[in-house]
Amino acid sequence: MSATPLYGGIEAGGTKWVCAVADAGGRVLETGVIPTTTPGTTIAGAVRFFRRHRTLRAVGVGSFGPVDLRPDSPAYGHILATPKPGWSHTDVVSPLRTALGVPVGLDTDVNAAALGEWRRGAGRGRETVAYLTVGTGIGLGAVVNGRLLRGLLHPEFGHIRVPRDRTRDAFAGSCPFHGDCLEGLASGEAMRQRWGRRAEDLDDPAVWELEAGYLAHAVVNLTYVLSPERIVIGGGVAKRPGLLSRIRARAFDLAAGYPAAPALTVRAAMDEYVVGPELGDHSGITGAIELGMCS
Amino acid sequence: MSATPLYGGIEAGGTKWVCAVADAGGRVLETGVIPTTTPGTTIAGAVRFFRRHRTLRAVGVGSFGPVDLRPDSPAYGHILATPKPGWSHTDVVSPLRTALGVPVGLDTDVNAAALGEWRRGAGRGRETVAYLTVGTGIGLGAVVNGRLLRGLLHPEFGHIRVPRDRTRDAFAGSCPFHGDCLEGLASGEAMRQRWGRRAEDLDDPAVWELEAGYLAHAVVNLTYVLSPERIVIGGGVAKRPGLLSRIRARAFDLAAGYPAAPALTVRAAMDEYVVGPELGDHSGITGAIELGMCS
Repeated sequence: MSATPLYGGIEAGGTKWVCAVADAGGRVLETGVIPTTTPGTTIAGAVRFFRRHRTLRAVGVGSFGPVDLRPDSPAYGHILATPKPGWSHTDVVSPLRTALGVPVGLDTDVNAAALGEWRRGAGRGRETVAYLTVGTGIGLGAVVNGRLLRGLLHPEFGHIRVPRDRTRDAFAGSCPFHGDCLEGLASGEAMRQRWGRRAEDLDDPAVWELEAGYLAHAVVNLTYVLSPERIVIGGGVAKRPGLLSRIRARAFDLAAGYPAAPALTVRAAMDEYVVGPELGDHSGITGAIELGMCS
Repeated sequence: MSATPLYGGIEAGGTKWVCAVADAGGRVLETGVIPTTTPGTTIAGAVRFFRRHRTLRAVGVGSFGPVDLRPDSPAYGHILATPKPGWSHTDVVSPLRTALGVPVGLDTDVNAAALGEWRRGAGRGRETVAYLTVGTGIGLGAVVNGRLLRGLLHPEFGHIRVPRDRTRDAFAGSCPFHGDCLEGLASGEAMRQRWGRRAEDLDDPAVWELEAGYLAHAVVNLTYVLSPERIVIGGGVAKRPGLLSRIRARAFDLAAGYPAAPALTVRAAMDEYVVGPELGDHSGITGAIELGMCS
């Protein structure tokens, strides 16, 4: 076993925890997957994975949320109230730090993905980059002025309200808190409830035109609030071929050329503004490792 | 005349330019007001005001927009396409710098106000603070992680889309670009067009309940995107007695307790979260002076 310092990352999701170790250059040496069951069993599985690496220096966690990120809070590192059974108020950071004896960095799964794309993917060289994930839920991570966006808690972008498409959409929305917020209208779960099938099984172009319309509202509102230099859209639903291009077209129309930034006034610039993740499915774990390196 | 170094600020608005000089402690020593007419006459008026102060070290400008803030852009310091007659593509920075021989800092009027409230007002001691102005138009300035938010261009928050109140509001919206975006529904100009009178002359509680509903959507969407630690709401329309308290109540209901941050789950914490400007009408000029000091 070499004495190379190693850095761990955990993409802590609601269905699985992806664990990885990388060298100081960010090269991933080993990956493991642990199903998300109870907090105790899941965290113990991660500890077993990392214990094999004796030169582990730090671990970063990109966690599903909401999660308390305030360094001065007694609940720092805890999952907050979550619909995920058994996980509300779980301390994720302390058990890892205690068992592994290394610093543990933490941020949301989407901030980790934003960090990954910013350091090593589609956001390289920019100051302000947004990462929007559209999967079972909708989430936002962002690097603003070269730092992860946290603020009061962390973005809960999935829950913004956008106008409903009243001519084509009678669905009441799937969000247990808000009904027809963005996530309630456009997440994978919303699609499943509205159409009675999983997003990946839906092929009617009208379904995807409606979806693109809602996500275009997300892109435009995000642009008007955060003014990112690039918006990366990842997540399972966003993999649908052609969806990104529909979103761009609708966002271009919605922005109506205002303000006079090329991304909103030149159609080809919009193609460079709204993009898929350059790291594919690895944005999150890449960013989690980076969170460890900075912890 | 003393040799104390002085710093100038300009709150460059569409109807007037407020100019001020302050000492290094930020104490304002003199203020002047110049009506906004043609670019040449207006800028010359500001130059005359500042030339009287021989120890002027720098000037900061908080300008109406949109304005090009990208340091590497050939149009840096220029007003972009604007409905304000005669002002599209006006270079604001170079003529001031050339005539006064001092560095000129620039940002949007709302970013200047955000900076003012952050350094010396309601945002003191926080890392991420949003300043929302509701007047003739609607604008957002923000300090994120201790730095002004710029990104691709700068926030154009007034133009986000929010759900219309379809039961109470048949008004098509006043925005020339988007119709019923937030500014098109809730700005002073929208109120004037919808009700046929200026906002300050409207006293029907139903008018203000509708307005509070739209602005509550703004507060909640802003919270979900930017997650500020405090939202300051300024501007002429926001001075209406009781409006802030209606906005808080509606925003509290809209957030529906999600996520579990006190501002959204404890009614009294919401009162501390959404506040008026501590500097009253001086947020913008205070921030403009700060922009000069940092230029």
